[in-house]
Amino acid sequence: MVDEDPVVTNPDHYAVLWENDRVRVLEYFDTPGATTTPHVHPDSVLVALTSFRRRLFLNDEHVDVELAAGRAVWLPAQRHAGLNIGDSDTRTILIELKGESGAVESADLGPDFG
Amino acid sequence: MVDEDPVVTNPDHYAVLWENDRVRVLEYFDTPGATTTPHVHPDSVLVALTSFRRRLFLNDEHVDVELAAGRAVWLPAQRHAGLNIGDSDTRTILIELKGESGAVESADLGPDFG
Repeated sequence: MVDEDPVVTNPDHYAVLWENDRVRVLEYFDTPGATTTPHVHPDSVLVALTSFRRRLFLNDEHVDVELAAGRAVWLPAQRHAGLNIGDSDTRTILIELKGESGAVESADLGPDFG
Repeated sequence: MVDEDPVVTNPDHYAVLWENDRVRVLEYFDTPGATTTPHVHPDSVLVALTSFRRRLFLNDEHVDVELAAGRAVWLPAQRHAGLNIGDSDTRTILIELKGESGAVESADLGPDFG
């Protein structure tokens, strides 16, 4: 779907649940201390199924994100890697939107909490 | 947003969490026995935050749906009303996709489990 598709770069963490012509829906799972390699997300909605704390990083930038179970946030198209810095598992649903996304380079790291 | 927008027809159950130019994100909540009036959904992804059983109905048609917490399903554009036929609260996130949806009349009632 995209270069550095997380399902390809980090298959232990990302899996495709299903897709159609408008969206591709992924599930993400990790445990405390787990990290991913850099990968690219298109414009997406992230729904947290568990509460978690994680660090998103790229080059020498990083942002720490804390989300409560049940929160739904906008993840603008971006390239990043992730690290579970909490003491609980992370489980999220990612709804990737098909069609034109924002430029990967233009977004701040992490979700846009609006 | 649409005629029979559920946020307008059933404000006790549906609330807008946030929106941008690509999606509008709703939260739905009800308790056992609660019912809605008919309303219209555009093409949407539904994420179940709780396990639930509900009946979706329109005119003399109905379908009973059971979803486990954490499931994410496609809800093609449709008009329906809902009734919580389970013994637990229902809490879901609905990601409504902006842009052209399928015809409301063409979809079967309820989610498309693929």
